[in-house]
Amino acid sequence: MLDSSLKNKFEFILVEPSHPGNIGATARAIKNMGFHNLSLVNPKDFPNDDALYRAKGAKDILDNVKVYDDLSSPLEDATLIFGTSARTRTIPWPTKTSSELGTVLKKTLESSNAKICFVFGREISGLSNEELQMCDYHIKIPTDEDFSSINLSHAVQIISYVLKMELDSIDSTQEIKDETPTFQDNEYLIDHFDKVMRQIDFYDQENPKQVKTRMRRLIKRLQPDKLETGILRGFLAKIEQILNKKN
Amino acid sequence: MLDSSLKNKFEFILVEPSHPGNIGATARAIKNMGFHNLSLVNPKDFPNDDALYRAKGAKDILDNVKVYDDLSSPLEDATLIFGTSARTRTIPWPTKTSSELGTVLKKTLESSNAKICFVFGREISGLSNEELQMCDYHIKIPTDEDFSSINLSHAVQIISYVLKMELDSIDSTQEIKDETPTFQDNEYLIDHFDKVMRQIDFYDQENPKQVKTRMRRLIKRLQPDKLETGILRGFLAKIEQILNKKN
Repeated sequence: MLDSSLKNKFEFILVEPSHPGNIGATARAIKNMGFHNLSLVNPKDFPNDDALYRAKGAKDILDNVKVYDDLSSPLEDATLIFGTSARTRTIPWPTKTSSELGTVLKKTLESSNAKICFVFGREISGLSNEELQMCDYHIKIPTDEDFSSINLSHAVQIISYVLKMELDSIDSTQEIKDETPTFQDNEYLIDHFDKVMRQIDFYDQENPKQVKTRMRRLIKRLQPDKLETGILRGFLAKIEQILNKKN
Repeated sequence: MLDSSLKNKFEFILVEPSHPGNIGATARAIKNMGFHNLSLVNPKDFPNDDALYRAKGAKDILDNVKVYDDLSSPLEDATLIFGTSARTRTIPWPTKTSSELGTVLKKTLESSNAKICFVFGREISGLSNEELQMCDYHIKIPTDEDFSSINLSHAVQIISYVLKMELDSIDSTQEIKDETPTFQDNEYLIDHFDKVMRQIDFYDQENPKQVKTRMRRLIKRLQPDKLETGILRGFLAKIEQILNKKN
């Protein structure tokens, strides 16, 4: 479960987005993963009806969007900044792939004033070198080498998904499952199949041991629940009943 | 590195998508992660300019889209089927979260005729119960509990991203094993159980639909190999033969 106060430590920042639809789709994407803070730097067109339409049930995120003139303002009190980058830059920067986020985050989240920013660049040209150099890490979403340009809101969706997975695993509790049949229940079921297979001379057709072993492996792998065990044993019992009546 | 022949074993299927823009965005999303096969079941409006615009550089994916009248057609030769589901159903189905895909995939990819399908439902209402029951697994993208409705192409983006991460981590020198029964083979097995259960009046005892659905779910979860399918169908055939002789 994602702790609400933990979520509030994260902020998504779009730099100069051109398409208002992408702003709306981004609002929906982060809310889907339990995040709330969205900031815009010099959006071309916002507020806008298309943003509202694409946001669907995430109107509240748009209502609370903060708009800035430059990237350094929202970053002022940030304690950890990631900038997304598709291209390889002339000056290599500490880079993490989306799947390596966990270790970096864990350390930062322990801090009482943690504010973790994810900065996404323009649809066409991404982030400038100056903007990228404001970031602690560059973050790279692994894509197909021949087609690496991800839609802006889709990139946000991937990052926010990975973040949620990481945060959920930091504070995870074991899921409680339904009652499972015991070893003994499964043995009864295997024996029941064996008994009926004998009765109908099924083993005559093939190597008998082979078939029983296969059935055992099948039941073991299946791990039937209580109800399924009931159906299978009921089915076998009904067949037995009919066979016995006829003899 | 993602082996090209491995990528071709995957197919993304959208059932009755309403917005052509979502089809284009889906084409781009899968191509970003190195996948190529996209199928549509009864799209409301396709081909369409909006699909083309949103696809950007993924026009080739749209050019090769296959369009079907019903979901069972593209699934016919599938060996593993995942259906996305946000809702909890009356009959719980084997469910994996997006982060648990790896283990299931690994086993299937070993098969020489592997065809792995990911089925995505309608924008508003998702997949029907009948469609969901054609799937081996339901797949759930963990979202915020209070806002779980993900945009269609964003859901595809998450799944295709996770798949690429899993495939990148799987050793490409994996051994190719025996053939896996297809969707159609499993349907024959389910029907065979149904036929025998009818013949012995097994359904009288309980809610008939419930039992058949449970058996369907059991077979889907079991994913029997060719030999196991042979044993089970041989067992059923032998019972039929005895019953017919007595009448």
